[in-house]
Amino acid sequence: MAVSSNHFLQSAFIPRKSHVITWNNLNYRCGFVKKTRFTVLGCTSVTHKVQSFDKRVETLLNSVKWDDKGLAVAIAQNVDTGAILMQGFVNTDALATTISSRKATFFSRSRSKLWTKGETSSNFINVHDIFLDCDRDSIIYLGTPDGPSCHTGAETCYFSSVSNFVEDHKTEKETLAMTTLYSLESTISERKAETLTQTDGKPSWTKKLLLDEKLLCSKLREEADELCRTLEDNEDRSRAASEMADVLYHSMVLLALKDVKMEDVLEVLRRRFSKSGIEEKSSRKSHS
Amino acid sequence: MAVSSNHFLQSAFIPRKSHVITWNNLNYRCGFVKKTRFTVLGCTSVTHKVQSFDKRVETLLNSVKWDDKGLAVAIAQNVDTGAILMQGFVNTDALATTISSRKATFFSRSRSKLWTKGETSSNFINVHDIFLDCDRDSIIYLGTPDGPSCHTGAETCYFSSVSNFVEDHKTEKETLAMTTLYSLESTISERKAETLTQTDGKPSWTKKLLLDEKLLCSKLREEADELCRTLEDNEDRSRAASEMADVLYHSMVLLALKDVKMEDVLEVLRRRFSKSGIEEKSSRKSHS
Repeated sequence: MAVSSNHFLQSAFIPRKSHVITWNNLNYRCGFVKKTRFTVLGCTSVTHKVQSFDKRVETLLNSVKWDDKGLAVAIAQNVDTGAILMQGFVNTDALATTISSRKATFFSRSRSKLWTKGETSSNFINVHDIFLDCDRDSIIYLGTPDGPSCHTGAETCYFSSVSNFVEDHKTEKETLAMTTLYSLESTISERKAETLTQTDGKPSWTKKLLLDEKLLCSKLREEADELCRTLEDNEDRSRAASEMADVLYHSMVLLALKDVKMEDVLEVLRRRFSKSGIEEKSSRKSHS
Repeated sequence: MAVSSNHFLQSAFIPRKSHVITWNNLNYRCGFVKKTRFTVLGCTSVTHKVQSFDKRVETLLNSVKWDDKGLAVAIAQNVDTGAILMQGFVNTDALATTISSRKATFFSRSRSKLWTKGETSSNFINVHDIFLDCDRDSIIYLGTPDGPSCHTGAETCYFSSVSNFVEDHKTEKETLAMTTLYSLESTISERKAETLTQTDGKPSWTKKLLLDEKLLCSKLREEADELCRTLEDNEDRSRAASEMADVLYHSMVLLALKDVKMEDVLEVLRRRFSKSGIEEKSSRKSHS
């Protein structure tokens, strides 16, 4: 249904193209908007569509198995690296707010109020999707953080290793909970720092590669070739996994020299590839 | 302190080499064990060491900020892929059990008892390390699962996408919460399945690569070369990230053809590289 132009809005809010606005309790999707104050042209009623979206959100919220305090666990996870950034609790309002705002929002049990991660620090967590578990009482906010997620300034809130503590390791260093790829990245980064400060002793293989770009590039080309040969020569699966591990490791040493994080690479992949298949078109374009 | 041989144990338990056993309220670490029933040779008292380990575990357990029900949140995460496998709650006993058994153990709120994930399904989660968050009321069990972690048979418990539901996608398919790398892996795997069933239409770039091993290997060698050139020709960081994305993508298409998962590759890397620097020795060995 097209509505007549020149409706007066009750607020000074001028919607962007395709924004949904509410007027007289009806929702309109605005195509072309004439940017005169209080004047909106070319809006189409989308009340039915908006209502059914709201209805679905309501159905979803009702399907959550809230605990006796009306809460469920919410875990914020970095969509690119998989790092668990923080964990909080949500009530109905917090989850509804996150669905609409796409900023990870929680219910503070100590302050009995909603809070959006980043509202004071500006380190928002931009939520790409939300997942419920099989019992519908635990939630993942899968997103990208604008900065460190911990109030201490750490990248994530999980930096106290139990094994470091109970096994009485004499290190004062805090260790972030890291999965294999980022643990390797961290090791390479430490070796890189050591190449600047430690010049004595027999250098490790990683340090040799970091100090000799010609060797590194020669090895990386060789490893890529060996990975290809696992396909060309029909070698077994374990050989392919091992050669891919070599490719990854040598590539990551190169990335360390270029000051590029695996997270940056994964962001490129995420932007390039999507479920819709857009990826393949753009990939074809860039490779044709 | 070395103790005399031929002590009689109060149980039929014959310890393995270097196992700690308790006899007359003292702890012994057993080096050589003669495998005669009830006979143990070559044990050394380690009471002091064991006590101080226990003391540290006790200190750690006391440092957790248990809620009013004596519980804290525990999240099990795959150390290689970063996938959040499941989430439960722990009390003091559950956490202590996990520390000693290295099998992810929880407290069931509905059954009011401890349960070790896998005790009925045999799909244990082998815990490599445990991390506490900054508030010490949330825990990560970082480990490797022996099989699917969800009682439904799914790899993880998180397969209900909120955006799929509220945006009314007409798909019945459940979507696992996947980070970028595994989402790409899943897309490539879908394209591979399609190459077997769909022969009409213009194939996507991924399908072209899957169907033409020569093209794939030629592209992979080319991308590795281009990544090297970002270092050799001092190209900018974004170029390096983009070329690494190309290397990863083409490598993953090759892995799909070889039926190798990124998880297998990361397992190789985890076994090869460790914080102790063993990695670099073995790496030197394999490359010298």
